[in-house]
Amino acid sequence: MTYCLAIKLDEGLVLASDSRTNAGVDYASVYSKMYRFDLHQDRFMVLLSAGNLATTQAVVNQLRRDLENPASMMNLNTAPYLFDAATYVGNVSVSAQQSHSLAMQRSGISTEASFILGGQIQGQPPEIFLIYPQGNAITPSLDTPYLQIGETKYGKPVLVRTMAAGLSLEDAARCALVSLDSTMKSNISVGPPLELMIYRTDSFQVGHYLNFDVSSTFYNDMRNQWCEGIRSAFDRLPRFDWEVPPGVEAVN
Amino acid sequence: MTYCLAIKLDEGLVLASDSRTNAGVDYASVYSKMYRFDLHQDRFMVLLSAGNLATTQAVVNQLRRDLENPASMMNLNTAPYLFDAATYVGNVSVSAQQSHSLAMQRSGISTEASFILGGQIQGQPPEIFLIYPQGNAITPSLDTPYLQIGETKYGKPVLVRTMAAGLSLEDAARCALVSLDSTMKSNISVGPPLELMIYRTDSFQVGHYLNFDVSSTFYNDMRNQWCEGIRSAFDRLPRFDWEVPPGVEAVN
Repeated sequence: MTYCLAIKLDEGLVLASDSRTNAGVDYASVYSKMYRFDLHQDRFMVLLSAGNLATTQAVVNQLRRDLENPASMMNLNTAPYLFDAATYVGNVSVSAQQSHSLAMQRSGISTEASFILGGQIQGQPPEIFLIYPQGNAITPSLDTPYLQIGETKYGKPVLVRTMAAGLSLEDAARCALVSLDSTMKSNISVGPPLELMIYRTDSFQVGHYLNFDVSSTFYNDMRNQWCEGIRSAFDRLPRFDWEVPPGVEAVN
Repeated sequence: MTYCLAIKLDEGLVLASDSRTNAGVDYASVYSKMYRFDLHQDRFMVLLSAGNLATTQAVVNQLRRDLENPASMMNLNTAPYLFDAATYVGNVSVSAQQSHSLAMQRSGISTEASFILGGQIQGQPPEIFLIYPQGNAITPSLDTPYLQIGETKYGKPVLVRTMAAGLSLEDAARCALVSLDSTMKSNISVGPPLELMIYRTDSFQVGHYLNFDVSSTFYNDMRNQWCEGIRSAFDRLPRFDWEVPPGVEAVN
């Protein structure tokens, strides 16, 4: 499994992903799921992937080959809008899934993969798209300015309680790390290192890129602070009426 | 969908459940998923249910009929151990699922249901059992002293970060409410009112029973305090090295 997250903010984009890939519990490996592409200066794009590893590798491989091939009908450099780039990634994904689908069906294994494409093309705002295994794509709303793929449920409550388009890139990045950490603590199929990228609107280059191992000082500090914060949030929850200690008012 | 949670502590048990039942998005209703039984004085049992409503109602109905029938081979009053009671609930559940399974299969609807049985029989410690749709049952470990059924993922991170067998019943009850609230905010198939029961070891009666609507003062107060606590936990997370404000030390 996998957990990838992209957040679209007024100031730019935050993208985050774990690095665990597993085929059964006895074959777990570390693979990056965050792909950068060397594009023209008028555009910036990052792809996050979840699902069948052979499919996601085939897709990224095809995207890179199309970039190098002057005869390609479409590639990430020629897409006039980010939505077109997302649709193109969707088409490449559907083709990659189909090429082995019969053999995979016989083995009872899914070839499906999901992607998040984040980026910006000059003259347009930054955007993020979730590309479904069927090839179609959605962009987030202002009220819910994030997209998730993979093991999405454990990390959602913290996003629901904190996320807003007006957050700073750094605050959203901290929120993304907590969301990933919550998922890792609940599900062993999501694992370190974590990758985090911050893209600032109209910069057309990586703002910050961080790769966190669980042993890193920053990551441990964040994790400990969050645990302490959760515990003190608990301590401040209202008492039940039968347990009122002296000097504290009960709430019914 | 549903979310039910049971916690086994040194002091006793905490049981919590939501009340939303839905058959498609246009037929959502309020049904309690927490069942109490009028048993002999040497025992106390509560059942939480998730899954097909017809199955869970058939199971509870059968459990009640067996209690009233002097000729019944087994019932909740005659089970010598709570494990036997859980196995008996599992058998009743499997039978209830089978009686309509062919017709349901043709309609593509699952008859499956899961249960949590919590309680105590005199001379034995309090226990909780998760009863799978297949009829078999598990009890939690000391390190993970809780069991969940239904929509379990959203509410798990907060349990992972806070739950321990040594917690007070009240602290665990607050944690259960936050876990349910986190789930409700992330998934519309889990909804109010919330039911919460506290059972104190060797009491053989309900310690506290609370039914919270989202409009209740206590519930709103808890929700607001939790949101504030989460926000202040965020505010205390470490800064990235490029955003160090004056007087604060950066962590790399």
